[in-house]
This record gives sequence, structure tokens and C-alpha cells, in this order.
Amino acid sequence: MNFASDNAGPAAPEIMAAVAAANDGYAMPYGADVFMERATEKLRALFEAPEASVHLVGTGTAANALALSVMAAPWQTVFCHEHAHIAVDECGAPEFFSGGAKLSLIAGDDGKLTPEALSAAIEKTGQKDVHSVQRGPVSLTQVTEAGTVYTLGELEALSEVAKGFDLPVHLDGARFANACAALGCSPAEMTWKAGIDMVSFGGTKNGCLGVEAVISFDPGQAWEFELRRKRGGHLFSKHKYLSAQMEAYVTDGLWLHLAEQANAACARLAEGLAHIQGARFAHTPEANIIYADLPRAAHARAFAAGAEYYLYGPDTSLEGPGDTPIRCRLVCDWSCSDEKIAAILAAWAG
Amino acid sequence: MNFASDNAGPAAPEIMAAVAAANDGYAMPYGADVFMERATEKLRALFEAPEASVHLVGTGTAANALALSVMAAPWQTVFCHEHAHIAVDECGAPEFFSGGAKLSLIAGDDGKLTPEALSAAIEKTGQKDVHSVQRGPVSLTQVTEAGTVYTLGELEALSEVAKGFDLPVHLDGARFANACAALGCSPAEMTWKAGIDMVSFGGTKNGCLGVEAVISFDPGQAWEFELRRKRGGHLFSKHKYLSAQMEAYVTDGLWLHLAEQANAACARLAEGLAHIQGARFAHTPEANIIYADLPRAAHARAFAAGAEYYLYGPDTSLEGPGDTPIRCRLVCDWSCSDEKIAAILAAWAG
Amino acid sequence: MNFASDNAGPAAPEIMAAVAAANDGYAMPYGADVFMERATEKLRALFEAPEASVHLVGTGTAANALALSVMAAPWQTVFCHEHAHIAVDECGAPEFFSGGAKLSLIAGDDGKLTPEALSAAIEKTGQKDVHSVQRGPVSLTQVTEAGTVYTLGELEALSEVAKGFDLPVHLDGARFANACAALGCSPAEMTWKAGIDMVSFGGTKNGCLGVEAVISFDPGQAWEFELRRKRGGHLFSKHKYLSAQMEAYVTDGLWLHLAEQANAACARLAEGLAHIQGARFAHTPEANIIYADLPRAAHARAFAAGAEYYLYGPDTSLEGPGDTPIRCRLVCDWSCSDEKIAAILAAWAG
Amino acid sequence: MNFASDNAGPAAPEIMAAVAAANDGYAMPYGADVFMERATEKLRALFEAPEASVHLVGTGTAANALALSVMAAPWQTVFCHEHAHIAVDECGAPEFFSGGAKLSLIAGDDGKLTPEALSAAIEKTGQKDVHSVQRGPVSLTQVTEAGTVYTLGELEALSEVAKGFDLPVHLDGARFANACAALGCSPAEMTWKAGIDMVSFGGTKNGCLGVEAVISFDPGQAWEFELRRKRGGHLFSKHKYLSAQMEAYVTDGLWLHLAEQANAACARLAEGLAHIQGARFAHTPEANIIYADLPRAAHARAFAAGAEYYLYGPDTSLEGPGDTPIRCRLVCDWSCSDEKIAAILAAWAG
Repeated sequence: MNFASDNAGPAAPEIMAAVAAANDGYAMPYGADVFMERATEKLRALFEAPEASVHLVGTGTAANALALSVMAAPWQTVFCHEHAHIAVDECGAPEFFSGGAKLSLIAGDDGKLTPEALSAAIEKTGQKDVHSVQRGPVSLTQVTEAGTVYTLGELEALSEVAKGFDLPVHLDGARFANACAALGCSPAEMTWKAGIDMVSFGGTKNGCLGVEAVISFDPGQAWEFELRRKRGGHLFSKHKYLSAQMEAYVTDGLWLHLAEQANAACARLAEGLAHIQGARFAHTPEANIIYADLPRAAHARAFAAGAEYYLYGPDTSLEGPGDTPIRCRLVCDWSCSDEKIAAILAAWAG
Repeated sequence: MNFASDNAGPAAPEIMAAVAAANDGYAMPYGADVFMERATEKLRALFEAPEASVHLVGTGTAANALALSVMAAPWQTVFCHEHAHIAVDECGAPEFFSGGAKLSLIAGDDGKLTPEALSAAIEKTGQKDVHSVQRGPVSLTQVTEAGTVYTLGELEALSEVAKGFDLPVHLDGARFANACAALGCSPAEMTWKAGIDMVSFGGTKNGCLGVEAVISFDPGQAWEFELRRKRGGHLFSKHKYLSAQMEAYVTDGLWLHLAEQANAACARLAEGLAHIQGARFAHTPEANIIYADLPRAAHARAFAAGAEYYLYGPDTSLEGPGDTPIRCRLVCDWSCSDEKIAAILAAWAG
Repeated sequence: MNFASDNAGPAAPEIMAAVAAANDGYAMPYGADVFMERATEKLRALFEAPEASVHLVGTGTAANALALSVMAAPWQTVFCHEHAHIAVDECGAPEFFSGGAKLSLIAGDDGKLTPEALSAAIEKTGQKDVHSVQRGPVSLTQVTEAGTVYTLGELEALSEVAKGFDLPVHLDGARFANACAALGCSPAEMTWKAGIDMVSFGGTKNGCLGVEAVISFDPGQAWEFELRRKRGGHLFSKHKYLSAQMEAYVTDGLWLHLAEQANAACARLAEGLAHIQGARFAHTPEANIIYADLPRAAHARAFAAGAEYYLYGPDTSLEGPGDTPIRCRLVCDWSCSDEKIAAILAAWAG
Repeated sequence: MNFASDNAGPAAPEIMAAVAAANDGYAMPYGADVFMERATEKLRALFEAPEASVHLVGTGTAANALALSVMAAPWQTVFCHEHAHIAVDECGAPEFFSGGAKLSLIAGDDGKLTPEALSAAIEKTGQKDVHSVQRGPVSLTQVTEAGTVYTLGELEALSEVAKGFDLPVHLDGARFANACAALGCSPAEMTWKAGIDMVSFGGTKNGCLGVEAVISFDPGQAWEFELRRKRGGHLFSKHKYLSAQMEAYVTDGLWLHLAEQANAACARLAEGLAHIQGARFAHTPEANIIYADLPRAAHARAFAAGAEYYLYGPDTSLEGPGDTPIRCRLVCDWSCSDEKIAAILAAWAG
């Protein structure tokens, strides 16, 4: 009963099969393989961006940090939510790859930036001329860290603020597919049509073994990206295993189907959770992540039954008054079964 | 007929099977998986180093650059052969990860450093006190870039020079297994018993999909390595796919068998090559790489027959006088078949 | 009538005389001069720290950034006030010199950190293990950016928090002398006796041409500091001109006399200001800086009379309703005369 | 009898007077002073470059490293002589400021690069595509580290090679004035007319206290330079003391007169040296530096008489056979008197 993360589950059979198939025979290394050629073609079609540059890396941190290093000069600051993955979960990777750029942390309910808060943060940056760090890219996270999803209108409004200051916009799309599935929109609508300049298009959390595509709608940055990727140790020699994953992922809508499965499972879990005595959602779950408060006793029962997920707060001990609410995060991936959901609901219910 | 690189071929069936098996079910991410536990245990046993730290990454460049970043301060210089992979094939990754350390390039026949040349290079470094960059680690490559193999005595003599200056020693073991197979020695003999402090133990070129272990015999550096790995974007969330590869690789001597196969194939290829009219070895092939000069006409026939390998020199055109010698590199991996060897020999012979 | 900054005024005659005297004859470069020998001796005596390391640089930004680069690993964060000079006035110098460390910005009234806020900020850092940046040094500013002065008790309480987490403490003492004069304490009391590990001891703002001493009470860090200083381009060849300034500055209590003059001038200015119609202090001026609100008309009169100082806020135009309060900063240096003070008070009064 | 370096001597009286004069009264900080305005104007006139950007820093290392950081991307390599100051005397400052660029060291007699050697070094760089560091700027040193001076034709030929590869050219002009005096050419002829894009125009070694101007003939790089300078801690608050030095330095040809004095002193020293028994010039002294071999006994006599200068080689002990030649470096600055020269010549002669 693992609800700890969408990186705890298995890869989808189609992905595994593609890797196995790619193992047959020889291929030129470092991305000069036929799988990459096809993956690039399919991603460009999917994003309706025939000129976009496409690069694969093995981790989301690499995707984000490399993207930002191309977008931000060392003396600039990246505007992002205070809980953004790039701010709290990457051990300073953006600072490292960018050569010491800052991150300007902006508060916002439900994991979201507002145009007002973004605008204010940008406004107050760089006013001391050469003494201040300068304004750099805006980085948005979709699905947000709170499990919510920016609407297309919200994305557009934020991009508009950025463009008003002549700043580029990055999208951390580690859960891009889950957001797309939730919004029922196209990848193009959620990116360049909404003002996004570069996107980390995640595969790992959604059924791949480990692959993320960085897609830039400004192809002039491609060669710099390649050099930074190589220099960062993120260019794989047996690149075909990454290419094959990505090709399979964007073939026949697999990326979207997997996300739809994850979101549907999460919706079922949320529905059940709403009926648990004492349960309260911290944010409205809109994709495949739930943040909720549950009584300590419910958690204790679930953990005793073998559940795995994260608790948050000053006191996450399972010993103590049973009705104390404790915050938890629950994540569903594509493989989350009805049985697993039923089992955890039963355990919580007691 | 691909002899371009040992990263062009397939992964071994045992490795593929391990990855497939690891896909079953859930595992905690970021290295907290049971496969990693077992891989670590087996690597420690293999290296007779029960305290060694073990970290996995996806590329050889990451392994080398992270290892060196732990060993070298930004104001130090790394002593290495002028043709070392870290110097010519990693787009400055060691400089990037170390925060701007230098590389001191040392010439040497057959891809090897000599104790005299190493000693002289170290001697002349740091003599201007604070004005000079300071002496840093020595990095050796085994198998060398020339396809030769340092004897244990040679490794020991070089380490002794380094130790005489109180400097640590790194081993780039992208082809560690091929060297071990060639020398018939144990991993311990080729590392800490010979004075090596940290080793990049390669899997990718020898039958894995993409995994390298960085093994440090000084466990006090483990936490810094972990932070640098995360910060470098090289900590995989679905880490089990790396762990499973590495576990299978060091189970039942697979790593050694694969290397023995590659070396044996290379020996057969070299034997045949020696009988080709006009062929001349540039270095004595001691593992799985051959550098040789062949007449242009022989290359032309091989390429026409579908061979793939790299040519070097000012004029690598296949048009021109047929007897002009052109330098080539030929690499055999574990999967290199007798048929493939026979075919290229036949093509060269004409 | 320049009240813009204490870096706008002249150097003290004693400092100028020392530089002129040092110009006589030859001296070995790079700090091996007799003036440095004497400056070091006198600084050690002044700080009652016979083992302290002493290094001179030409700017406060260099002093702070170099000090922090020795104290903070690239994967750590520096805890400081959100308005600290290192955060808002150094264009990311600490990030650059440290190789990409973060700054954790902490709010606090009157430019001061509280032990509670500091403790909370440290507590919440590094909880995600390798995924988070790690806890690094605490940096305090004395005189604060708000013109207030930490009491010895406040400094000790903050250091105690840092020590409780095993973190070192840096003091940005660009206006160290003004604080010492305000508190009537000794340099030792305001540094190592209060738990400070390294201090940027400013000379530039207090009557020198351009010299800051970085004093470390942990002499084990001296060689690393020297290498970082050289590598940062901050080791002066004709170092004697820096040494001579610093020597004169700490001879016969000049550093303290100059600060006392500046503080006294500021007190007189504050006293007069308190009687200006509509004036309101934003913070209690405790050293040589005043933050106050004054009616727009008063500012207009002062600027018309030739005053120079900075205004802050969304609307700093001098056109508009005369009674609108506008925030200003006023800084007095050692050379600030009674005439200058009388003149600006007269202008404000109208 | 100090011949150790041109940074060991005093500042010229005109420079000292300018600093003293600048001390009078108030000036806005950070370069917004009237002295800087005039210095910029005069430098632009001197270089016949009305659009050039001009920035001052306090050290030659800062000038070079900042200039190169603007010209070289982190994944590029700087082509320079193997004995260049940037390579051997700056503790890796170019690597630090550039974010980890490499230096490609090129051998050459008499401290000079040849077009052939430069061309060959560039040719062999970047051939492995993304795996190699890329071609970056060429950095020349004038006066060279060997005390020789590139002719205008030599500079032009080297620039032409660089331009042929579309690479910019930097000139380390720590002894720019001495070279100009030696060649009898104009600053424009020795820079942009010869293909130089950015120059470190030294003042420190030629009679200033500590000031270097970085002049870029591509004004589009000015803002990036300013940000890097601030971020590097090299923007002085009391900037007027730097500006005043530079203004005086380029007023009424002072920079050239001082260099002519130094060169003339050096010529007299060289002439006398040529008559010392056993003396041999290592390079033809063409400006204000002499490299020569002298018998050990001559050195012993000079040091006994109070001479100060550097000896080089494996054995620089003054004990031993008196006729053994030992290499020395002798540098004359503007203040070098006939008496000092006569004294050392007498000591050598015995």
C-alpha cells in the first residue's frame, strides 16, 4: 500500500517493452540513435512546435536546473513559489548549474503564484541598479507542489506578467501529463500558447524508468543546452534507452492514458477519504496528489496495515491522542489499483 | 559491423532481466531500495572493503566529475594524462563540478603516465605560493585511452609519487573490468592495495544500460558526495533501476565474464589484423581497444561492407592513394561475435 | 550637504598621511610589507586575539563574500536578515564566491534578527535530508541596515542559537566602529566573546580610502582564505597602501574617535530632526544612520538647498502635496560638521 | 637596491597628489564621481575610441579575470602562452570568474605565441563536438612575461588567426605603457587597430597605487561587465580614489613618461650587465624586464650588498661553485635611479 510518491511504482509495460526492444543490436551513442529521432519528431508533433529543441535527461532535477541555467544569468534571480521543487527539493541544483543565480521565493495559497504577488516580487527586484541581482526567469510548477492545477487562464496571466517585464517563463512539468489530463487541454495550450518558453516534460513519475524531456520553443538555445548537458554529466552514452522510453511514452497517447489512470485513482481515493471521520483536505486535490489532515488514530491503523506515505508537521508520532489531526500527502501513480485504494480506506476507517 | 565503441552495443541479458525483475512492485526512491543494499554489499565484498562508500550514477562523466569534485578544491589542479577522458571528452565537467579547478596535462607514451613525468609535473606546481593553483589529486585511467593497461607495479609506482606529495589518487575505471581481466588481478589489488583512494567503476561500457559506481575507500567523504550528487541532478528517483543493474553486474562474476569476452574478441581481432597487408599497431592492444594504422584502401573496403569505427588524423578521407596509412580505433564489447570479426577481417583483406 | 552615505566623505587626515608616508621607498608586495606586520599586531591586540588571522581587502563586498565562502559549503544556506547588505546590495557576491550557496532571508523589526526567528529558520532547513540545502553559517550585521545596534546580550543570544545547531557566526561589521562606540564595549566583547567566529571589520566607511580587515578567530582557515582572496583578485600587489591605512586606523584609537565623531554628529542631527514639524523616526537611530519620515515639503526645501540623501517608497517625487510623509535615510560620517547639520535642519524647518 | 618587481616601488608624485586632491570634499560613490567622468573621457581620447567602455578595478588579476569572464563561456577554453600571468600567477582566477572555463597553454620562445602555434592549438580544439570544450578567446600579454614586446605586426598576425576562427582577442596590458614606449606606437595601434577587443590597461606597475582600467571596444558588453565587477566585489564605494589615480595617469602623457623612464633605466642596466663577466641574457630585454644568467658569485655579491631580485632554477642557493650560472629576473620601474643601477652593477662586477 505505497502512496508515498509516484516515483515509487513500476514502469508501464509499454515502456519496459520499448527498452527491451531497443536493446537489440547496435546504435550510435550520445543521442544519435533512431529512437531519439522518432521521439523528437513525435514530441514536436505533440506540442505542435516543429522547430522546438528536445533534449533528454535522466532526472527532474537535471531537467529543471539545466533549463534554468540556460534562461538565467548568474547575476539574476529566478521567481518561483516558496514551495517549488527547485527551491526546496533540489539541494541548490539551480544555483549550482546557473553559476550562483538566486531564487526569489514568493508565497501563495494552494501552491500557486498569483499575478499580483509575482508582479510585486519582480517590481522590487533590481531597483538598486548594479548592486542588486537582476530580474530573471519565472518558473512555474504544474501540477503544483500542493496537488492543485493552474488553469490555462492562470498560466496565461502569470506569463503575461513575466512578458510585461520581458522575462522568460519556465514550466516545471514533472507532472505535466497529470495536469494536462486534469485540464483536458493540449500540450501546446499548456505551454507556448500560454506563454511558456521552456518546459521540463516529465516521464519518470508517470510510468517511465527515468527520463525527462526539456523542450525549448526557442531553438536558438539548443546548442548551449547541449553543452551544458554534457558538461553536467547528463548526456548518456547509451542514450537509446532514454530515447526508447520517451518514444514509447508519447506514442499512441500513452503519456496521457497513464496520467488519466493516476488522476482517476486519486479521485476515487479522495472520494473515499472524504467519508473518513475527521478527514479534511488541505488543498482541493486536482490531479494525482492529496494533502489532507487525518486523525492520528487513522494514520496509525493505516501504517499498521502496511501503508506507506509521508506525514508532515511538528508532531508526526503515531503515539498520542488519537483524534489529533496530522497532515499527510498521498500520491497515486498509473498503477494504483482499486484494491490498494479499498485497502487503505478500510484501514483508515478502522 | 560496429566497432565504434563499447557503448554502441546491447546490454547483457542478465542485466536486462534484472531491470525487468526490479520493475515488479514498489520501492522507496532515491537509493533506499533493497537492490542498492545488495549491490553495496556485493561491491564491498568484491573490493574487500567493508567500509567503502558506494554511490551510483548514470554516466561516466558524472562519476569522474563528482569524484574529482570531492577530491579537489577549486584552487587545486588535477594531474592527468593529456589524453585522459576527463581532459578531452567531458566538455569541462571536472572544472564545472569542482568550482573551477584546473587540469594539469602530462604527456606520456601509450596513454600512460610515468612516475618521473608525474613527479616533475607535481614538483613544478604551487611553487609561487598563493599565486599558483595548488597541488590536487592524481587521476589515472585504466584501461588507458590508448587501449593499454597499467601493470599493478606501474599503478603502485604512480600512487607512491602521489602519496609522497600527500595527494590522493583517483582511478577512472570506465573499463575497469577489462583491465582486471587483462591483468588477472583482483579489484582490491587494482585499487586500494595499489594506493587508489576513489574509483569510478564502470558498468555502462561493459554490458549495462547505464550505471557507474563511485567507490571511495575513505567513507568520511560519503555525505559530501551524496550532497554533490543530488545537487548535480545525479540522484535518480527511481534509483532501483540503477541498483538492479549494478547488483546483477557484480553477481556471479558477470562483470568479469563480460570483460573477458570483450578482451578475447579483441585479441582475435588483433591477431587477424596483424596479418592484414600494411597494418601496424599504434599501441599494443592489451584489453578491448585497438589503435592501428591501415591502408586507406582497406578502410574503404571495410566501410563499404558496412563497418563502423573512427578514423583519426589530418586526412581521413577514403578517396586518395590506397596505400596511405590512416589511424583507426576499434573497440570490442562483450557481444562481439566471431562472425563480426571474420567479416571485418575479410573486408580489410579484400 | 551630503548625507547620502558614509562612503561619500573624505578620508581622515591621519589615514592620508599614512598612505603618503608609505609611499616612501620600496616594499615587498602582496602583504609582505612592514605596515601589514604592524597592522596585524595591532589588530590582534585590539581584539585581544593573539592567534587571529587578519586579511585586508579593498571593499566590504569582498570582505563579506570571502568570509562567507570560507564558512559556507556550496550546498549550505546562510541565515541572515532579509535586508542584510549581503542579501540586497552585493549583486549575489556571496552566491558567487561560495559556489552557489543560498541565503535564507529572515524578517525582523528594526533590522534585527531575533533568536526565535533565527531558530525557526534553522529548524526548518535541511529536514529533507539530501534533497535540501544544508544549514550553514549565521551572518549578523552590526550596525544593522536600519541604523540600530544589537546589544551584547542580543548578539550573545543569537550566537547561542547558532552554536546550538553547531553553526558558525559571521559579523558584517562595515560599521563596526560605530557600533562599538554606541555600545561602549570592546572589540573582543562584540566579537569572539559574544560568539562571533569571523568579522568583516570595516574601515572604508569610517575615514579610510578603501580597506576592510577580515579577522578570523579560527586561524586554521587562514590559508584557505588567502587562496580564495588571491583567486578572487583581491590580493593587492602594492598591498602596503592598504596596510598603511589599516595600521593608522587602529593606532591611538583613531578608528573609535572617528566613529564617535560620526555618532555624535548623528545624535545632534537626530535631536534637531525631532523638532521638525511632521518628522517621525522609522527606527531609533543608535549609531550614525537615521531612517525617518519627513513631509514632502521639507525634503523639497532641503534638496533645493543642495542636500543629498536617499528617499524611499513608492512615490519619492518632490512634486505633490507638501504634507505627505516620505521616508529618507541620513548618514553622518566622521567629517560631518555642525555647520552642515545646522544648514540641513534650517532647510527642513523652512 | 630593489629590482624584484615594478610593484615594489613608490607611486609617482603626480598620482599621489591627485589622490590627495580627490580627498577634498564629498563625491557620490561607486564610480559616479567627476574624476571617473574625466578619466573615461581621457582614456577614450587616448585610445581614439569614443564608444569604448571603461571600468576600473584595483588589481591586475581582477582586470584580467573579469575581462575573460565576459569573453569566455564556461564551456570554452582561453588560448594563451604557457607562461602567461593568467595561467601561472592568478591562482585560477580566470577559471573562477568564468565559471570553470579552461586555459589552453601554448608554448613559444621568448614568451611569445606564434600564429602557427596559435592556429594549431585552436584547430585541435572542439573537434569532438559537444564532448570537447569549445574554442574561446585568445589572450595575449604585452609586455610578455619574458620581458619581450610583440611588434605591431606580430599582434596583427595573431589577431588575424583569432578572427579567422571568429574568436575575440584580449590583451593583458599590465605593462601596456612599457610596451607602447618600446614600440613608439599609439594605444590605438597596439589595441583595436591590431584586432584587440578588450584590454587590461595597467596602472599599478607603472606608478599608481593600485588601479587598472579594463577597456572594451565592444560597448555592448559594458553592463555585463559592471554586474560581474560588482558581484566580484570589485566595485569600490570610494571609487574616486581609483578614478583620480587613473585621471592623473593619463593626463599630460604621464603614463608614457613613467614607462619611458622605466624602460630607459632598464636599458642602462642591460648595457652594464652585458659587460659583467659571465653574464648572458635569456631573452632580449625590450622593455623594463631583464632575464639573464649570472655567475653565482656575482649574485652573492649583489645580495650581500643589499640587492633584492628573484632567482630561478633548480639550485638558487648562493653557496657553491661561484661560476655556476643562475637565472635571475630584474625589473625597473619609473623610479629606478642611476645610483641604484650603478650600485648593483658594481656589486656584480665585484
